[in-house]
Amino acid sequence: MRRGSTERVTIRDVAARAGVSKGAVSLAFNHRPGVSPATRERIFEAARELGWTPSATARSLSGRRADIVGLALCRPARQLGLEPFYMDFISGIESVLADRSCSLLLRLVHEPDEEIALYKDWWRGQVIAGAILVDFREDDPRVPALKGTGLPAVAVGHPSLTEPFPSVWTDDAAAVAEAVRYLAALGHRRIARVGGPAGLGHSVLRERAFTATLRELGLEETRQIATGFGEEEGARATRSLLLAARRPTAIVYDNDIMAVAGAGVASEMGLVVPDDLSLLAWDDSQLCRITHPTLSAMSHDVHHFGAEVARTLFDVIGGTHTGHRQVPTPSLTPRGSTAPAPRPDAPGPRDAQGRPDA
Amino acid sequence: MRRGSTERVTIRDVAARAGVSKGAVSLAFNHRPGVSPATRERIFEAARELGWTPSATARSLSGRRADIVGLALCRPARQLGLEPFYMDFISGIESVLADRSCSLLLRLVHEPDEEIALYKDWWRGQVIAGAILVDFREDDPRVPALKGTGLPAVAVGHPSLTEPFPSVWTDDAAAVAEAVRYLAALGHRRIARVGGPAGLGHSVLRERAFTATLRELGLEETRQIATGFGEEEGARATRSLLLAARRPTAIVYDNDIMAVAGAGVASEMGLVVPDDLSLLAWDDSQLCRITHPTLSAMSHDVHHFGAEVARTLFDVIGGTHTGHRQVPTPSLTPRGSTAPAPRPDAPGPRDAQGRPDA
Repeated sequence: MRRGSTERVTIRDVAARAGVSKGAVSLAFNHRPGVSPATRERIFEAARELGWTPSATARSLSGRRADIVGLALCRPARQLGLEPFYMDFISGIESVLADRSCSLLLRLVHEPDEEIALYKDWWRGQVIAGAILVDFREDDPRVPALKGTGLPAVAVGHPSLTEPFPSVWTDDAAAVAEAVRYLAALGHRRIARVGGPAGLGHSVLRERAFTATLRELGLEETRQIATGFGEEEGARATRSLLLAARRPTAIVYDNDIMAVAGAGVASEMGLVVPDDLSLLAWDDSQLCRITHPTLSAMSHDVHHFGAEVARTLFDVIGGTHTGHRQVPTPSLTPRGSTAPAPRPDAPGPRDAQGRPDA
Repeated sequence: MRRGSTERVTIRDVAARAGVSKGAVSLAFNHRPGVSPATRERIFEAARELGWTPSATARSLSGRRADIVGLALCRPARQLGLEPFYMDFISGIESVLADRSCSLLLRLVHEPDEEIALYKDWWRGQVIAGAILVDFREDDPRVPALKGTGLPAVAVGHPSLTEPFPSVWTDDAAAVAEAVRYLAALGHRRIARVGGPAGLGHSVLRERAFTATLRELGLEETRQIATGFGEEEGARATRSLLLAARRPTAIVYDNDIMAVAGAGVASEMGLVVPDDLSLLAWDDSQLCRITHPTLSAMSHDVHHFGAEVARTLFDVIGGTHTGHRQVPTPSLTPRGSTAPAPRPDAPGPRDAQGRPDA
């Protein structure tokens, strides 16, 4: 239902429509415990139908904004616009926030210390009700710096990296093992990997799982390159792998834009994907569906992941949640960029030294 | 330069490094007039080098946060993650904000009334220092509702839509004329257009310019379809155009993902791009470069557009700017999806009624 102006509707109308007390509406919108999840949803729905938004004064309990959550990203601005992952992740967060009349305070930072100072400032300044922490490193400095501040936060990453913060995580190790097993089943024996920055916790976990799976299957321990997540970085890493004396026949990437760039490099070097070289992307997005050939990927629903993170944060703010939540493991979506490994004695492209690729 | 902790650096250190007074540093970070743009940049650079961020208390003048700007988007959450335009636009805004230690408060709303109530709430609640207004409609309700509030705001759109708000705009009419002239020069006589939502101001401007240019060149007044900006909408509109008795030989789209979807529909209907059908995208992004064939586009630097909007907002907040700023007009980047029109008597695909396409 749409009204001419939202200002004529009051909290009383919302309470009546949802069949609850005004106090319950207030608790729900301030993300406090005391209303069941089902009742909360009914209240949000009633507010949406009536076009009601609580006013700043009504919302702030003890001066703190209860309707703003913070997200700091330590990434170059350009990359934010180019990598589908973060905008899809943010759109998932926003989908949950919008239904609760909440906003996301987004900030790009240059280094972890700036991020720590920012979160402390936002929390002490009563700007945010809670925070989303991403891109965890091993021995992440944010953990000791923020754990005693009282800031309600949800961490995105494996619990081993984020403790004591409640986290939302995907089983990267299991997904990496599936990717390698799939390529091995296609006959590939030299599988390389192009990963994200060396310091990132999930890069480390994926790297270890990759090596462990190669060993388990008795495959060659091929190179893994840690780099950025950008187009340029993906192209450079792929070029380096394909110029090696013992060229891989398959490459696994840590995101989709690096895989797209890798496909471009393969073509520039006269290699046919997937006949000469199989490529497997990560994250998956429309990019993978419009390349030629289309890109096989380890897919996960990044939008849903973001939404789950936001829901968990509200539970943390409301005091009803303190544990970890696992979202579905990325799973294989085979498309046109993966195929059986080329036969070692097949005629065709030679490696950089001009020797047959055997 | 990186430090172990940002908290040991003070405003005094920043002032000394930039060679200015502490007061000047404060003015710069609060976006107040009184420091020249060059000095301001020097201060920001000194702060960045020292890893210094002003604290919440030091920053708020009369209780208002000077380091947060607001952006409300009336779009579905899913679309935010899928359409490259907004990701790129936001990344441009963030690039300027990050250098000034500022954050973006981002909120998805369902309708204009919700957006108006939100901005009033943010402004009265002293949450934001200013706002970015986008997606203007003709007789936009935000103009009368917000113009008397004192909220410093920059509007994105043609000045005729955004007055009295200072705006940052591109000359859509000129770009549309260039697109049509280019296709006409290739011999196309039936050029259709797939545009954004009918109510949006820039859709209306483009639609009018499109019709005017067709008339000027003596071309057929072909259909223009107003739709959403999504993949599905682009596919549906393209299908509808290509099933018509008098099928167009060229289609201009209002963004890139609709053009990508259009290419998919052409292929599904057995039409070869660009031999049977030319497609021209808008905005341009990596999507256009990785499709097969690559997509010709009316390109503009959306990241730079967002950055210019953020810079203009700081000038408005600082009281040094009240006019309109034009950013470069989108210009043609020809790629693989446009070619001379098929000859009317050429053998080849027929229209939906089975008649030769003449």
